[in-house]
Amino acid sequence: MNQDHVVLNRTNQKMPLIGYGCWKVDKDQCADTIYNAIKVGYRLIDSAAVYANEVEVGQGIERAIKEGIVKREDLFVVTKLWNTCHHKDNVRPALQKSLKDLNLSYIDLYLIHFPIPLAYADIQKHALDWFEPGTQNMKIERSPLQETWREMERAVDDKLVRNIGVSNCNVQTILDMLTYAKYKPATLQIEHHPYLQQNRLIKWVKSQGIHITAYSSFGPISYLEMSEQAKNTKPLLDHDVIKSIASKHGKTTGQVLLRWAVQRDVAVIPKSMNMDRMKSNLDVFSWSLDDDDLAKIADMDIGLRFNDTVAYGLPIPLFD
Amino acid sequence: MNQDHVVLNRTNQKMPLIGYGCWKVDKDQCADTIYNAIKVGYRLIDSAAVYANEVEVGQGIERAIKEGIVKREDLFVVTKLWNTCHHKDNVRPALQKSLKDLNLSYIDLYLIHFPIPLAYADIQKHALDWFEPGTQNMKIERSPLQETWREMERAVDDKLVRNIGVSNCNVQTILDMLTYAKYKPATLQIEHHPYLQQNRLIKWVKSQGIHITAYSSFGPISYLEMSEQAKNTKPLLDHDVIKSIASKHGKTTGQVLLRWAVQRDVAVIPKSMNMDRMKSNLDVFSWSLDDDDLAKIADMDIGLRFNDTVAYGLPIPLFD
Repeated sequence: MNQDHVVLNRTNQKMPLIGYGCWKVDKDQCADTIYNAIKVGYRLIDSAAVYANEVEVGQGIERAIKEGIVKREDLFVVTKLWNTCHHKDNVRPALQKSLKDLNLSYIDLYLIHFPIPLAYADIQKHALDWFEPGTQNMKIERSPLQETWREMERAVDDKLVRNIGVSNCNVQTILDMLTYAKYKPATLQIEHHPYLQQNRLIKWVKSQGIHITAYSSFGPISYLEMSEQAKNTKPLLDHDVIKSIASKHGKTTGQVLLRWAVQRDVAVIPKSMNMDRMKSNLDVFSWSLDDDDLAKIADMDIGLRFNDTVAYGLPIPLFD
Repeated sequence: MNQDHVVLNRTNQKMPLIGYGCWKVDKDQCADTIYNAIKVGYRLIDSAAVYANEVEVGQGIERAIKEGIVKREDLFVVTKLWNTCHHKDNVRPALQKSLKDLNLSYIDLYLIHFPIPLAYADIQKHALDWFEPGTQNMKIERSPLQETWREMERAVDDKLVRNIGVSNCNVQTILDMLTYAKYKPATLQIEHHPYLQQNRLIKWVKSQGIHITAYSSFGPISYLEMSEQAKNTKPLLDHDVIKSIASKHGKTTGQVLLRWAVQRDVAVIPKSMNMDRMKSNLDVFSWSLDDDDLAKIADMDIGLRFNDTVAYGLPIPLFD
């Protein structure tokens, strides 16, 4: 049985190994959903500017705190800098907007969402997107990651964020970051499920004192509307190997997929709009997978990535 | 029939699509080999500090020039900065040593060999290696790629090198470089053969005005002594698909593999110690592969990389 948290570098702050992920949580249900998530036991909330629901996430948090379910310091709130705000002059305004929208005085973990600097778009006026407003153009801005990271570090010094990290970065990017970082990344958030296990990347990143958070733990299901490959891939929640392991332990397939990650000390951030599943997703520390289960899941790795920038119609293959 | 050269960005210098690669050319045969390569028609010589034969490469070049076979300006000489010399104070001395060893007043194309900054080792005293002398330790040095690149650019300004580029970099690294480069890379050198076609990376890198050079065009054959996977993989020079295409065109399998790359506008740098093969490798512009050939080779892509840092026993998975 592993612990239900990891300890982050530099701050020694505990980060829960399970959190609630806000991607695709509809605005109109979002405040209630986040409130319910906290009520059933989630303590980490994984948000992002580009999810366009930070106001509602903040409302859910506020209600939970007002009702005495949690104190602010019991929660671990994550949000992310969008691609259009990498310029050194735009990081702070973007962070301040997230703080204002979330109605918080600090963020527990602030991540650079993608290592892709896009031309600035006024986040107050434009939808956050990959493309310039009203076009299919993706305009790269000359904002070095080093300058963006300096601003992330400055947000730590100014106590607006406690920990900083990155998402969707590969080994080469992190290796270079480690040459200039005053504060090295606390975490790396990546796509991670049995079809894309990323063992070598995870091993090396952890050896640098950086913790891993998995997104899309259930695999293709989040990408059905944007990826043909996701539609044509056997769903993990309905996969025979996962089903047989679930049945053996008297658990759901979702629980098996989450347990598999946390047993590797990889944090997870499942989303569910269903209260029962929200609860069951939390039950991943009272039981464990055995060596036979792990060997069977290990065999499922086919290096298949669904969050592929090319599949979105973007001209840049970020993971090649 | 495509051209036998590409035109590099910024300088508009022509780079031959075929060159002679000096990796693993033994010191004692190297001067003669390079002389012979130039004599049979090679005009690009691909060298590197870590190949530990720059002195002999320089002797071969000198002899060819002395005998009037070529003038210096007819040659396109490439060499590479080794990992232990990424620090901004070490780039210039490393370049000057390469110039001295090659006995040249300028380099046509100077590449950063790997995006891995290792602790400085005195290149005059120590073997160039991945590890600290006498150990199996690989010590990362805090030299940001941006600072190394600045020194590469300064070498251009000081007319010691005409073009600068990189090797073994992926999309994320190049994307970041483009945010700070005063002179963007002229070329990217990567492993490239039918088992590792890298179509998406190549397409994007070319769209940025950066040309591609392939190394290991013959696939596993260069890695037999360092990689189990190479030993267990069907040799490309003896592969049925390549053999049938070769037979159809009355060419060798080596010629097919080289023609396939140059037909994609990817430069190649085969090595051979055999004069006949040296010559035949040059014959890749008088004929072409047809759509059927290209389709068959396209089907051979399995994303299989042999120049894998982990396979060398290094702790860092550079391409993950």
